[in-house]
Amino acid sequence: MGNVFLNLRDQDEVKEIIESLKIHKKIEKIDLSDVYQRILAEDIYTVIDLPPFDRAAMDGYAVRAQDTFGASEDNPLSLDLIEKLGAGDVPLKNVAKGKCTEVGTGAPIPEGADSVVMVEFTNVEDETVQVHEAVAPGTNVSTQGSDMKKGEQILSEGSLLTPEKIGALSAIGMSKIPVFSKPTVAVISTGNELIKPGQELKHGKLYDINSETISNAVKACGCTPINSKIVKDDYDSIKNKIYEFKDVDIIITSGGTSAGAGDVLRQVVDDIGRVLVHGISVKPGKPTLIGTLPEGEGDIILFGLPGYPVSALMIFNTFVAPFLKEIAGISGSDQKKESLTLKLSRRYHSARGRSHYALAKIKGNTAIPILKDSGAITALSEADGYFEVPKNVEIIEKGEKIKLIPFSNL
Amino acid sequence: MGNVFLNLRDQDEVKEIIESLKIHKKIEKIDLSDVYQRILAEDIYTVIDLPPFDRAAMDGYAVRAQDTFGASEDNPLSLDLIEKLGAGDVPLKNVAKGKCTEVGTGAPIPEGADSVVMVEFTNVEDETVQVHEAVAPGTNVSTQGSDMKKGEQILSEGSLLTPEKIGALSAIGMSKIPVFSKPTVAVISTGNELIKPGQELKHGKLYDINSETISNAVKACGCTPINSKIVKDDYDSIKNKIYEFKDVDIIITSGGTSAGAGDVLRQVVDDIGRVLVHGISVKPGKPTLIGTLPEGEGDIILFGLPGYPVSALMIFNTFVAPFLKEIAGISGSDQKKESLTLKLSRRYHSARGRSHYALAKIKGNTAIPILKDSGAITALSEADGYFEVPKNVEIIEKGEKIKLIPFSNL
Repeated sequence: MGNVFLNLRDQDEVKEIIESLKIHKKIEKIDLSDVYQRILAEDIYTVIDLPPFDRAAMDGYAVRAQDTFGASEDNPLSLDLIEKLGAGDVPLKNVAKGKCTEVGTGAPIPEGADSVVMVEFTNVEDETVQVHEAVAPGTNVSTQGSDMKKGEQILSEGSLLTPEKIGALSAIGMSKIPVFSKPTVAVISTGNELIKPGQELKHGKLYDINSETISNAVKACGCTPINSKIVKDDYDSIKNKIYEFKDVDIIITSGGTSAGAGDVLRQVVDDIGRVLVHGISVKPGKPTLIGTLPEGEGDIILFGLPGYPVSALMIFNTFVAPFLKEIAGISGSDQKKESLTLKLSRRYHSARGRSHYALAKIKGNTAIPILKDSGAITALSEADGYFEVPKNVEIIEKGEKIKLIPFSNL
Repeated sequence: MGNVFLNLRDQDEVKEIIESLKIHKKIEKIDLSDVYQRILAEDIYTVIDLPPFDRAAMDGYAVRAQDTFGASEDNPLSLDLIEKLGAGDVPLKNVAKGKCTEVGTGAPIPEGADSVVMVEFTNVEDETVQVHEAVAPGTNVSTQGSDMKKGEQILSEGSLLTPEKIGALSAIGMSKIPVFSKPTVAVISTGNELIKPGQELKHGKLYDINSETISNAVKACGCTPINSKIVKDDYDSIKNKIYEFKDVDIIITSGGTSAGAGDVLRQVVDDIGRVLVHGISVKPGKPTLIGTLPEGEGDIILFGLPGYPVSALMIFNTFVAPFLKEIAGISGSDQKKESLTLKLSRRYHSARGRSHYALAKIKGNTAIPILKDSGAITALSEADGYFEVPKNVEIIEKGEKIKLIPFSNL
């Protein structure tokens, strides 16, 4: 019991240690229809011109522009209609001098023609088209390659695949898309008192909260969680459970709150891997552990979170989430991570000597601190986000400005 | 050919018509592990107290507070240790006068005890505990129901299920969660010129873009897209395809650009349902069609988007997306829909008489308009969002402020 192993580190030092961690990034090719919100793993260049051929931009008649020179409302010129093309048709006839082809929007421009007279400026009788307007070459034609030329880069490695960007992949006909594999994250709750939701609640037991909060927060970071059964708080149970996850990139444990539990995890990681951090100078979340396990291709990285749900999620958000997003490839993406500047609704006392993460609710342009302890799950479901009180600050006065990091932006 | 059917309506009028549309909301019960980003369909009340029993908040000794009165560093009092409890254990013995039970954090407080003396303020020898500090009743105890009382409401119908809110559901032990079923949306691209990505590109053909942009945008609105094969631009093909989707809530078609295609869809909807809107006074996207089909339990709602990818997605974003979010239950959620106020990087000309949606890229605090026609897919993949030019405005000067709606916020 006690904190004999704890060697408290400053939060900035811990962030540096985490930033230095690496996992082996994998790439997979997946179907275009499955790429939404995935991260592109290569720069993409188009292998075709776009449009791939000269297209009619309007309904009308494909002509040689010079055949229309001099045409006007008062002085229409006559052209012979030789063919009719809709979008998707293939021209069979060349447009020679004095000839024209009817084209719907999107139809290919036949050989010989260089422009389209809009249908509004024509009259048709039998096979003869009266043209009432002169056009310049190129008029009402989307020329081949005018949008993108073969060989041009259209998307960059690391792009978050939004509907618009998926549209660009469709446009060039790609059906298998190289994306970064989602890192896999085992999520393990430890604690003799814990049972899974849905089971009968006996005296002395609590429903496990962390498995669900952490695994869903893992999803939000672009990673794939693998939920474990609950593990008893003893050396062998924890060690055996860790050995079950040889193929994951990350293992996240939380809890338990039983006596000396933090030390048991510490002993396991000491024995089978390497402890990098045990103890962070923050509140809540002091007994956090970070280590590496030489199990996989590279090391598996282990984060040991505290057992209290609020503490576990705050430590996850502050230290683990940025790392997961980085390795998932979404940290540089379009995702928002901005804080909101709000006025504090009341005086707030903090503990000196440790950085403090304080939950708060947004109301208008004020932040209302939630004054519940970190065992209270209602604190989490009521909070819109949190603000940080630096370790040398003891009191923030009512009305002072704080920077709230909304959960929805994490 | 031509727009004989078009009866242009103002965009506000169209928005009102769409707001009046209804679909039959369905509810389903799904596993707790699958509820991330779903919408809660009922108010949730806890059926247990939280914590469900009096718990030790610290490692130490459960005592009768009055047995410690008078204890101090200089004057320790002795208590008999009768039992040891960790989290998850069940007490077998009552703490009578002069007795105490060792408790780990999270362990239940035994009958008779009302407070916990922290381990730091004790010494133990054999079965005797020396207490160096007096405690008041309730000290270091999380009392039953102090976080939530049985019967209290913990979440509201319509809540977006974030990790924090899923934590609250876990805390009360719920394993099957009532959520709104995701509305189903058939997405149909029409056009004789279109082929699916991955196929060989023959002359006159184009890769279908709208199926992917629209179906992924549908996902972003909390609905389930069902992607159709490409449909030829003729009456029977379109009608038969629409009849294939009898069980969806919404059908979205786009295109094609071949002559008179808009009219064919119009004829189909006129014959088998009811046309509500055909033609909106906006640019791009004028020939948009909205109708209802009496196929399902209620009506199926049909949106006929233009064929050009930029036009289709802008009309989707402006008119369809808010409706889909509404029926999916995510419109009132925490999702952000704010616009950014930016300075225009250059003078911008618009067409008078129609509301104009202009694509733009964000650079610092300026918006750079993307001056490409609505056939250019690069316009979409380069744009960060769009701004609206009202129909009575022809020119926005360089440096004037505009409100950009980022795609990422849609």
